[in-house]
Amino acid sequence: MDSKRTNRRELLKGGAALAGGVTLGELAASQAQAHDHPMTPGSENASPMILGSKELVEYGQRSRYVTSVRIQHPPGGRPSPDLFGKVFHVASPLQDSVGVITPSSLHYVATTRGSYMPDIDPKLHTLTIHGLVDQPLTLTMDDLKRFPSVTRLHFIECAGNRHTPQQKTVQETHGMTSCAEWTGVPLSTLLKECGLKGSATWFVAEGAEEVKGASSMPISKAMDDCLIAYGMNGEALRPQQGFPVRIIPPGFEGIFHTKYLRRIKVVDRYYMNYNDFGHLRPDPKELALSEQIGPKSVITYPSGGQQLPGRGFYEISGLAWSGGGAIRTVEVSTDGGKKWNLAELKTTPQRMAHVRFGYPWTWDGNATEILSRATDEIGQVQALREQIAQWWNVPVERNYRVPGLDNSVMPWKIAKDGGVTNGLA
Amino acid sequence: MDSKRTNRRELLKGGAALAGGVTLGELAASQAQAHDHPMTPGSENASPMILGSKELVEYGQRSRYVTSVRIQHPPGGRPSPDLFGKVFHVASPLQDSVGVITPSSLHYVATTRGSYMPDIDPKLHTLTIHGLVDQPLTLTMDDLKRFPSVTRLHFIECAGNRHTPQQKTVQETHGMTSCAEWTGVPLSTLLKECGLKGSATWFVAEGAEEVKGASSMPISKAMDDCLIAYGMNGEALRPQQGFPVRIIPPGFEGIFHTKYLRRIKVVDRYYMNYNDFGHLRPDPKELALSEQIGPKSVITYPSGGQQLPGRGFYEISGLAWSGGGAIRTVEVSTDGGKKWNLAELKTTPQRMAHVRFGYPWTWDGNATEILSRATDEIGQVQALREQIAQWWNVPVERNYRVPGLDNSVMPWKIAKDGGVTNGLA
Repeated sequence: MDSKRTNRRELLKGGAALAGGVTLGELAASQAQAHDHPMTPGSENASPMILGSKELVEYGQRSRYVTSVRIQHPPGGRPSPDLFGKVFHVASPLQDSVGVITPSSLHYVATTRGSYMPDIDPKLHTLTIHGLVDQPLTLTMDDLKRFPSVTRLHFIECAGNRHTPQQKTVQETHGMTSCAEWTGVPLSTLLKECGLKGSATWFVAEGAEEVKGASSMPISKAMDDCLIAYGMNGEALRPQQGFPVRIIPPGFEGIFHTKYLRRIKVVDRYYMNYNDFGHLRPDPKELALSEQIGPKSVITYPSGGQQLPGRGFYEISGLAWSGGGAIRTVEVSTDGGKKWNLAELKTTPQRMAHVRFGYPWTWDGNATEILSRATDEIGQVQALREQIAQWWNVPVERNYRVPGLDNSVMPWKIAKDGGVTNGLA
Repeated sequence: MDSKRTNRRELLKGGAALAGGVTLGELAASQAQAHDHPMTPGSENASPMILGSKELVEYGQRSRYVTSVRIQHPPGGRPSPDLFGKVFHVASPLQDSVGVITPSSLHYVATTRGSYMPDIDPKLHTLTIHGLVDQPLTLTMDDLKRFPSVTRLHFIECAGNRHTPQQKTVQETHGMTSCAEWTGVPLSTLLKECGLKGSATWFVAEGAEEVKGASSMPISKAMDDCLIAYGMNGEALRPQQGFPVRIIPPGFEGIFHTKYLRRIKVVDRYYMNYNDFGHLRPDPKELALSEQIGPKSVITYPSGGQQLPGRGFYEISGLAWSGGGAIRTVEVSTDGGKKWNLAELKTTPQRMAHVRFGYPWTWDGNATEILSRATDEIGQVQALREQIAQWWNVPVERNYRVPGLDNSVMPWKIAKDGGVTNGLA
């Protein structure tokens, strides 16, 4: 696709320059319309118009034809009174995603309890750092914004993402992850300002939610790359993302990304908190202090519930990410896992951030299965479901529930009629 | 700020590790509050709450405390009936910006005529490529999305940005530029599919706006890096940005980024169009076929209308960009241009994209002037206003109107009381 390396002669031939030849089954019919549009001013059908308004001048809105929305997660798992009262897990429409930025209005949301969000006046909000420090610090939002800032792309993912593998769409199976451009102050900068005592080995980050959203993390993570974030995708955090400030410990499970952050206590041991419910299991095999999201990828197009209009060329598109660093490679199989092919990384891989991958595919119209597999910069490879079953010594059934975090390879079945369904259902 | 290179001993000392020492004048007072927040559950004042709703589950909104909005450009320049009827230039609130992504709702908007936007049903929209090609092509949006896609960060800037230099705020002086993650199909891919005839040297991109927004561009630009974009910041283009599809010729003036794109005609010469009004001037000195935005930067904090609360540490923050490629360096002066210091680039410089820069500054409380100057990867340096006056042989007055595009260095005056004003006013 690099036009600079293609000489003019090749360009003039057209079409052939594309790997595999782009043959879109639907094109022939629509080409007949080409001459309905003469280059004569005024001869076109006028579009209906949207009237400008003060509100649209100040803050724009999407088209009424764009209806992609978030959904409750898991779908239908809770009755509606619960949804707005207690449980509040909301999945992002990955099937409609492009690029790597998740629009803030569509970023996944999870709270530990309740959909009632703190409605915080940033002028009254403070962040206190105390505990095993030489000098405790209480910062207003204005204070915080005076420190040197950084801006980085990072994903967040709920540990519960994909906890029931048979769901229909990629929004239902993988929608509890999103990626945004975060701006804030490195936690290391603030801790240096306070001065850490020698016994400081852990810290607890506490938010203003009903159950405080407290999480314990090692002080080494704080000094490495934790961000005290007040900006998201170029504006202030949204209330559902912890306005006015949250912590981003890149690559750690979503529950560690404490929202409405009001206190960091530096301590000398792991503190058990409400948020640890996600790590407690009756089965000792499953009991573990997990933190880091494993390497993961999923094909977003074509994915469950979508329909291929016919055989021909498609670009398989998807997202890959890892808590272990940047994604190094993504492989795609279009024959159920027999052959794996290197995908193209469409965006620059960044540490603990989604990367968009693409793979050119000419579908021959036969039933098949498509899969993707990610490898991160420290060499971790996303495992097949069968491999994970072997590690845990459970029966190799494709739809068993993986203990703990499920980062296994996701298969999508393509039927002869072009319908796409979950390969595990 | 690199914690890995700082040994534990240095960290424990605190504060000293920061260049210049972060001394926030306001901190001493607020530290006294540190003990108002004991780590005892239930003892905090409860925040007011936002009740979850079906609408907020589906599509989130910003906090009611975040009120940053776009404004008419130039401010007060037109009476209100005009604003919603004919003129429609809307500037982005750069003074509140963080990072490099402009939220789609706050992206600047310019149309050639009228605030009535086409309200296009994407199912009925087609893009036709014709003229000097072997095989004309008409693509539906579904067809277009089957081609291999790319995702890139690019700024857009109106050539009229900063055309009256004395305005008060950075939104008023520089708000007609924004930056987004665009997803779409390289125009080169589509032209290869059609096959270019040997005489193809220019193309005209036409949109569905009242005056069609047609622009002529060299075919070499099409084959190099033009994008036929349907995605913006992870979702569909917004109507104000050309939903369902626009052309992005990276680094070219905004007027070439035709919205509501419905036709590309490949031709053998420059075609004069309505959009060329921006390039026609009665003065032959000013008459030029300009396309590319020059290297440019502006300090967004502290900027006009803002107020420094007192002397002490601040991070000067701003944006830099160039139509000539990626930004190589940004320099900042805090003494009215006598000494220039290298700023830190806070995000990875990308070709024809905003980059966020920062410079640590301890203000001594005296009146001064702060400025920034960008250099791009091909060595172009943003000029001082005095240099430009010399080139054009006009009197060296700081507030004269630069002919054509104004990419001169922007000075902000800091008064003794911390007030920030336009250095050209």
